[in-house]
This record gives sequence, C-alpha cells and structure tokens, in this order.
Amino acid sequence: MTSTTCYVGIGELVSGRGRTGSVNADSVHSIPNAAILVRGDRIEHVGSEAAVRPQCPADTVFVDMQGKTAVPGFVDPHTHLVWGGDRSAEFNRRLHGATYVDIAAAGGGIKSTVAATRDASQEQMAAKARKTLDTMLLHGITTIEAKSGYGLNREAEIKQLNVMDQLSAEHPVEMIQTFMGAHEIPPEYAGRAEAYVDMLNQELLPEVKQRGTVSYVDIFCEKNVFELDLSRKHLQAALDLGFKIRLHADELFPLGGAGLAAELGAISADHLVHATREHMQAMAKSGTIATLLPGTSFFLRAAYADAAAFQEAGCTIALSTDYNPGSSHTISQAVMMALGCMKMGMTFEQAFLAVTLNAAAAIEKADQLGSLEAGKQADILFLDAPSAMYLVYYWGVNHVSDVVKAGRRVVQERRRVAD
Amino acid sequence: MTSTTCYVGIGELVSGRGRTGSVNADSVHSIPNAAILVRGDRIEHVGSEAAVRPQCPADTVFVDMQGKTAVPGFVDPHTHLVWGGDRSAEFNRRLHGATYVDIAAAGGGIKSTVAATRDASQEQMAAKARKTLDTMLLHGITTIEAKSGYGLNREAEIKQLNVMDQLSAEHPVEMIQTFMGAHEIPPEYAGRAEAYVDMLNQELLPEVKQRGTVSYVDIFCEKNVFELDLSRKHLQAALDLGFKIRLHADELFPLGGAGLAAELGAISADHLVHATREHMQAMAKSGTIATLLPGTSFFLRAAYADAAAFQEAGCTIALSTDYNPGSSHTISQAVMMALGCMKMGMTFEQAFLAVTLNAAAAIEKADQLGSLEAGKQADILFLDAPSAMYLVYYWGVNHVSDVVKAGRRVVQERRRVAD
Repeated sequence: MTSTTCYVGIGELVSGRGRTGSVNADSVHSIPNAAILVRGDRIEHVGSEAAVRPQCPADTVFVDMQGKTAVPGFVDPHTHLVWGGDRSAEFNRRLHGATYVDIAAAGGGIKSTVAATRDASQEQMAAKARKTLDTMLLHGITTIEAKSGYGLNREAEIKQLNVMDQLSAEHPVEMIQTFMGAHEIPPEYAGRAEAYVDMLNQELLPEVKQRGTVSYVDIFCEKNVFELDLSRKHLQAALDLGFKIRLHADELFPLGGAGLAAELGAISADHLVHATREHMQAMAKSGTIATLLPGTSFFLRAAYADAAAFQEAGCTIALSTDYNPGSSHTISQAVMMALGCMKMGMTFEQAFLAVTLNAAAAIEKADQLGSLEAGKQADILFLDAPSAMYLVYYWGVNHVSDVVKAGRRVVQERRRVAD
Repeated sequence: MTSTTCYVGIGELVSGRGRTGSVNADSVHSIPNAAILVRGDRIEHVGSEAAVRPQCPADTVFVDMQGKTAVPGFVDPHTHLVWGGDRSAEFNRRLHGATYVDIAAAGGGIKSTVAATRDASQEQMAAKARKTLDTMLLHGITTIEAKSGYGLNREAEIKQLNVMDQLSAEHPVEMIQTFMGAHEIPPEYAGRAEAYVDMLNQELLPEVKQRGTVSYVDIFCEKNVFELDLSRKHLQAALDLGFKIRLHADELFPLGGAGLAAELGAISADHLVHATREHMQAMAKSGTIATLLPGTSFFLRAAYADAAAFQEAGCTIALSTDYNPGSSHTISQAVMMALGCMKMGMTFEQAFLAVTLNAAAAIEKADQLGSLEAGKQADILFLDAPSAMYLVYYWGVNHVSDVVKAGRRVVQERRRVAD
C-alpha cells in the first residue's frame, strides 16, 4: 500500500514551474499558506492548504510544518564527489603566499589527489564521500551529478565509479554519474595527451559504457591540457558509444570550449568564465545549459562568469558548487546563490531557478525534479525562515531544517539550543 | 558542589594563547589527542589526554568527543542584534537594480528599520533577537557585543536596551552592551545633527549610564552623518560619564575616524575600509583594536579593508559579522574567516585569532575569553571536522556540532541523516 502524507502549515511555498530549464525568472511563483500532498515518492497536489485538504484521502497522515517555507530539493549538477587525501594544509600554504608552482613543486595540487585516490581503498573513499553526501543532504542537496577523474588510470577510475554505485544504493541523495577520465593528463602520459585520449577512447569508454550506470562523459577542455581537437575526438568517441556529454569549458582561457559544447550538442558546458558572446549564442541555440561555478572563482580568487551575458544570449543558467578538494571545497548551493547574486549580478529568482529547475535540466531531470508540481518526484526542503529570499538575504547560514527525498522524510530538525 | 567534566577524545585542539589580543599568528597552537578539564564554569586543565587524565578528581564525568576538533567559543564584537521589521524584499529590489536612492525614496533603508523598531513591542523584538541568538549559538558564537541604534529616540533606544537585558538574563550567549544612539540622524532632527548629539549627551547618556548594564558608546562617524567634531563631542561626553568608547570609522570615506579613535583611546574602531596608514599607526600605539567587517563589504559589493596594512602597522585585528538588516545580514564568524582569507589576504591563523582572542580583546574580555587555557571561562566549540582549518577550507558549512558555554553544554549534535 502506498502511503499518503500531506504537509500542511507551510507559511510560503516557492517554486519554479515546468519540465525543462527556464530562463524566465517570472516562472518563480509563491503560494502562501500552502500544502503539499505526497503519495509514495510523488507529489500529488500542490496549492493553498484550503485547496489541497479536500483532495486528501481518508488515510492521509498530516504533518504540520508550523509556518516553515517549502522549496524544491536543490540539485547540484557538477560535483567531484569521490576522492582520496586531504588538501587543507596545502590550502593554508596558499593563504601564506605559496604559488601553484610552489605547491606543485612540493608534491601538492591535483597530482596529490590523484596519488591519494589511487592509494585509497574503495571503502576509505566511500566513507569520506558518504560523509560529504550527509552534509549535502543536511544543506538541502537531494540530487547531484558526480564525476570520476581523480584516478586517471583504469583501476582508480573504475574504483571511483564503484564508490558511486555503492553510495547510490545506500544513500538518500540521488546521484547521476559522469565519467571524467580526461580530467587531467596523468603522470604516465606526460607530454602525450593524445595517447592518453586514445587509451580512454579504445579501452576505458567501452568498459564504462558496459556498466550501465554512467550517463555522461566530461572533459577538462583547456589550453595545455586537452585542447579543442583532442576534446572533440574524445567527446565524439563518447557520443558514438551512446553517452551524453558535458564539458569543463573556457575556465582559465578563451579556448572555445563553449563553442565546441554547442557544436556537439553537449547537455551542459561548465565554468565558462572566458566564453565569448558568439559561443553563448551558439549554446542558447543548441540548448546547452550554462552551468556557472562561482564558488570556484571565490576559492581561486579568480574572475566570475558573466551571468548577465548568458542571460542576454538566451542561455539557461544553472549554478553548482564544483565540490572538489583543490579549487572549490564547499557543498552549499545556498552560498552559490549568494555568490551568484552578489558577485555575478543575478536576481534572487534567477539564482533560485539555477539551483532547482535549471540545475535539474543540466542533468536532464527537469521532467522529474526541480520544482514542486503534481507528478514530479517529492523532493522538498523546509526552511526555518520566513521566506525563500532568506537563502540569499540571510546568507552563510543553513536554513534547511527538514528534507523529504522521493517522498521520504530523510532529515528532520531535532537540534536545539538548551533551555 | 561544583561539577567536574573532562572532555576527552579530542582529535585536535587549536587555540591562541594570552590575556590580551595578539598580532602574532604564531601564538595559534595545536594539541593532538587533547583533553579539557572543566570545573564549574572554568577551564582547569588543557593538554594532551595523557597529561590531563591524571589531574581529574574521582568524581569527574568523562565525555568522549570521538575525535572532534576543539576550538574556543567565537566572539562577535560588533552586532546590531535588536531591531524590528524585515528588509529581505528591499534586498531583492537591490538585486533587481534599485539604487539606494530608489530604495530610500520608496521608504526603505535604515529609516524603515527605525520606523519598525519604534513600532515593535519589546516582546516582538525579543522574539526575533532570541531566534538570532539561537542561530548564533548553533554556529559557535558564545559571546557578542550588541548595539542599540535603530530607535534614535529615547523610548525606542531604551526599548532596545531592555530587550538586551531580557535576553542576557535568559540566553546562554553572553552579551556586552553598547549604546549607539548616534547610529544615524533621526528624521525629527534632519539637518540638525548637533542638536541631536546635544540631546543624546544631556538626556540619554546619563540615563543609559544609570542602567549599569551598558559598557560602551559607539557612533557612526561618517561624512554627512556625524562628522569628526560632532563625533568627538559625543564620545568625549561618553568618556566623561565613565563609558568606554568604540567607533564606526572610515567605512565609506576617509574622514579620519580611525585617527579620532586612537586620539580618544577607543577600545575598537570598526569598518576602517578607508583608514590611512598614519591612523593605523596611531591605532597601534593607542592599542585600539581594528575590527574589520568583510561581510559588509560583500553584502554591499564594496571595497574591503586592507588587513595586511593593519597587520604591518602593528594593529590587533578582530573580525565581526556586523549582523544587521541592511548592510550585512549574516551571523557566521566562520564565513567572516573565509572572507578574511579569500578577500582580505589573511592567513588561517590571523583569521582564527580575529574571531577568538582578538575579538575578545575588542570587548575587553581577553582575560576571560578567546582561548582554551587554564583559568579562562569554559567556552568551547567542538567541530565535526578533522582540523580547525576546515572552518575556512570547507567553507559555507557550519562545522560546529557541540557548544559548551561557561561550562554548560548548551548545544549537542543530535541531527542526523535517516538510515
């Protein structure tokens, strides 16, 4: 028998509307004194409490949310969830003035994460990633995209994917998997990027495809790493095998990754700090989502992507944390909203859609996730705040007090200050 | 009988040392496998668990912190805790492009908070501020400075102070009170700043002094608000009555507030975005703490104070949230540490001292608070993180899981993700 729960006493419900990502901030709407009827893992009715109550069957369990604000579960469409090691000490060396060259010379940087990932057991990495997923869920992230890419050889890349399979089975946070063997050129292939890509194309991509759990292939399309031609070669091989694709594009240099993303019909192009207007327009035409990562700009003290220009070009904008050990070590989509508003000129509504409906579109899940509407999966956050605006206005604070994932109440506020 | 508790199983303890604020980041030390013996409200021993255990009396209660990191309770030395109204909608108008002039013309800005504060009952404001104190405590703030200054007339300023008295009596967060009638020129005195200051000096300051609960007088020393001469007049009147003083100085314009703070021996000068080198040196000589407010710069998209220059001048630097409804609506000292490091060039150690020992010095409490040392008050945070570095490295996340205030465990982690 399917259980039916009605969340009542919702002070305000705020959500976008639709089954695809949207550039239209007007589609964010608000319902005061709202209720949400959930049957099994689905939303059955959303509306004012007065309208929803008569729709509730006799055996409905009513849960009084005592004036809390309801919003859709956050989606994070770009995370490097699984890795080994700890780079917090290296981070402080940066604060003390060490350059990337200094850090690399001391064995730090991405190479140290690759070494630690290769060394770690599957269970060690799963324990670390499980704790990260817990923290994400407590902050309202109900679905993520997660990439491999710190193994850079067959064994370690497969180990990362195994961790994702394991955690997908056991953890409430829903996970979409991306293979990113082309995250960096591994030490064994130094100076031989094409040989590495050929190995990935011939050996790893077919094996990864066989697993059946990996949806996307991603690549760090960047000057002196995987240049445009090599990126095209790798992504075309992925497309030929039936993967969908996404790109790290134009992060550090205007190489043209955004244009390549549009040309190949990528689902999402990410970073995009140096994307040209022409490529933005191409992305708008191809329906490639612009996933912007302001946390990385903050963490690296670098330039921010031009959200207004993407908006103007007609692109759909998503925001993501880029959670990773080196360039963006945070999991808070609310903080990304604040950075989007304060550093990239977004409005509240744009930032809100960028972590809900548009983020769901960036992983092709907008038909199921990203808004509170009848028929969608019941992924609901309750905020201990008088309005959704507090996600940005009262920033640096986690307002999420209760989380419903696929109809199940997986986080419930019980933490209180002593009397 | 005084209870004795020993917190054991502390993975790492990180703290500054001393009874005054310090500019020396080397004074941040770390003890692995640590323990803290607390008797009543005091710390009796701090050290390695092996060293502390033999010091514990027979009736000691042992609490296993399971590898958590211990740091001193955060002190926030500059907050506008108590006010009425809600400016979140105005905030979004700003994101949509409204200027301060637009917002003021629509009845917004500080004037709207003054009107709402005058309208609110003491109990309404206490309820709002109580919730803020709860959130602060959950984020590890165990002591704050709180200012009046949204009433701007006798009745409403006294009402704010009454709320502070009420909450001081009932809430675990320790509060140091500041009278800031000179936060703005009230509408009744438009164009007559001096008449307002004269009223404050003759009528309100003596009455406030009588209360016995207010330690400081603060003023918004700023061009076109309270200029240098008027600021000096008000602060001198406060000193004559036996108050200590602090200043909002050189926030928007290099008026010279930092120099005035040094001249008058202010305990702290705050904001200081436009302070000159000469005035920094004067502050170092007078022992005036430089309280920097990076959250305000972030929220207003304005310039940041030059932390390195204050450091170079020999000033002691504290960090604060400047919690208030208009220019910095956050309570997270960990986020201030992150902004201090990423936007103001501070090291982890400098930022850590700035929210602990130096922040305590900014309210003249460094003899009691701000470090984990025998004889000091037992204000302890336990972080669910492998090191204190995670306060900045893993930013945007509240790592505080347990809080001990004056020996009492007032926050205890019970919030968990469902199995």
